[in-house]
Amino acid sequence: MTESAFLDYRKQCQKRVDHRLERLMDAQKLPFAPLGEAMRYSLISGGKRIRPLLVYATCEALGGDLGQADGAAMAVELIHAYSLIHDDLPAMDDDDLRRGQPTCHRVFGEALAILAGNSLQSLAFEVLMGEAGNPPQSQTRLAMLSALAQAAGAAGLQGGQAIDLNAVGKTLNQAELEQMHRHKTGALIEASVHLGALASGKAKQDALQALQHYSQAIGLAFQVQDDILDVESDTQTLGKTQGKDQCLNKPSFAALLGLAAAKDYAQQLGQEAVQALHSFDERAEPLRALARYIVKRRN
Amino acid sequence: MTESAFLDYRKQCQKRVDHRLERLMDAQKLPFAPLGEAMRYSLISGGKRIRPLLVYATCEALGGDLGQADGAAMAVELIHAYSLIHDDLPAMDDDDLRRGQPTCHRVFGEALAILAGNSLQSLAFEVLMGEAGNPPQSQTRLAMLSALAQAAGAAGLQGGQAIDLNAVGKTLNQAELEQMHRHKTGALIEASVHLGALASGKAKQDALQALQHYSQAIGLAFQVQDDILDVESDTQTLGKTQGKDQCLNKPSFAALLGLAAAKDYAQQLGQEAVQALHSFDERAEPLRALARYIVKRRN
Repeated sequence: MTESAFLDYRKQCQKRVDHRLERLMDAQKLPFAPLGEAMRYSLISGGKRIRPLLVYATCEALGGDLGQADGAAMAVELIHAYSLIHDDLPAMDDDDLRRGQPTCHRVFGEALAILAGNSLQSLAFEVLMGEAGNPPQSQTRLAMLSALAQAAGAAGLQGGQAIDLNAVGKTLNQAELEQMHRHKTGALIEASVHLGALASGKAKQDALQALQHYSQAIGLAFQVQDDILDVESDTQTLGKTQGKDQCLNKPSFAALLGLAAAKDYAQQLGQEAVQALHSFDERAEPLRALARYIVKRRN
Repeated sequence: MTESAFLDYRKQCQKRVDHRLERLMDAQKLPFAPLGEAMRYSLISGGKRIRPLLVYATCEALGGDLGQADGAAMAVELIHAYSLIHDDLPAMDDDDLRRGQPTCHRVFGEALAILAGNSLQSLAFEVLMGEAGNPPQSQTRLAMLSALAQAAGAAGLQGGQAIDLNAVGKTLNQAELEQMHRHKTGALIEASVHLGALASGKAKQDALQALQHYSQAIGLAFQVQDDILDVESDTQTLGKTQGKDQCLNKPSFAALLGLAAAKDYAQQLGQEAVQALHSFDERAEPLRALARYIVKRRN
């Protein structure tokens, strides 16, 4: 798959999940409208939708029906959106800009931003519970919910964020840095692939293992590339404050390994991800193309 | 059931759920220990465990097996604990004291308190997903998860909290005040009863309706009594800052109706709750005793 074919594929996935997320938000009957606005503001915001793409592309790689993966695609993005709102809070990273727009708490205030994040988390689990957009088997939906809850909670994303906050101004070695990212960004990326596989209803054990290997490699690659971009890119291209991590003296692969070695490492991880899928046929092309894209992207 | 028999029953429920919550926390393998400590601090804190009691007592009232209600009892308390951590944050009610102890953010800092709350929310859903402590039917567990997610999210608790924050310093009429509490505290109390009924595996439509009526009456009664105690009690008895709501100029039943009328209203709601259960046999005695207790309690 060429890069341009992949970008088309990405656009399709983005449109598919965006359309469903908008309908989901339209269907919310809320007792306090501004809370819904804050949720919508952060959710419908032109994000790249990498996690939904992973859900769809994994489901397709296994020959599954995308109609059974819509719930999972929405759920992972809802968790992602919630975590970004909370990450940006004054008590956390205190960021003013996200995806090129003022952050949720800058627009709606801190209290409403906290509640909007919380509500998006509940909604993420809710969209996996019904039959619509999900596999018909209750057992499969429970397995998907379980994987998502683990990735979202203290053993995953929240734990990673806690390690991250605690690491500001400290010197981490490479193992510690990778452990942090495995939780902070890796857990949800892994869960996206895992949920896509479960949604297909066609995942065998060896395929699941290969996909886990793939998802771990791209999760890390994604973060290494993020660190590189924090140094090399500019605020406008990034849509968030460039140099912010450096400024906060956050540990990064760029700082730890040096820029050139970090770039080599990102490339190596991208290749590792592609190799993990060697037993998959051409239906896994979008997953392979994504691995190549992650370490090439400029924002 | 006498009040002293009810207090024994309450103690049993408390012990039962506390024991399970402690085991749950012991079993957490977390990448960042202080996050687990913050979660545990707020969860294992000598709370009255009214919501788990509602789960157990409802399950028993319908002749169900308590072993199928443990997951639900833990889940509602996990959601409650998470909501208290976030309610106490500086950006919300900015409270220093909860259950007689310094609030979570006063001990662990704001960032970790936010993450601990978030993690408890994920964990609440997680404990309902597995078979252990829950009904064996996946379909029932999904229905329980759905009810909990709706109560916890923007259409329930989070929406109620948003209305509450927005109401500070405003004049609400009784309908508006009740609408706020129906979401802020009522939704989770209703869900506790509903989950207990589902966990029993024995709930018929008319029983579910009666229980809903019961739970709505006690939910409101609980809040009216809280407003009375905020005026009448003292900080030590309450375990939280007395007069805080008055100080914040929060709308309250005591301020709206006057203290005497608020007391009458609480009594009336307690009776309404007892009457809602007229078709239930003696197994519903703990539920009836709770309704009487709620409007009599001093903390």
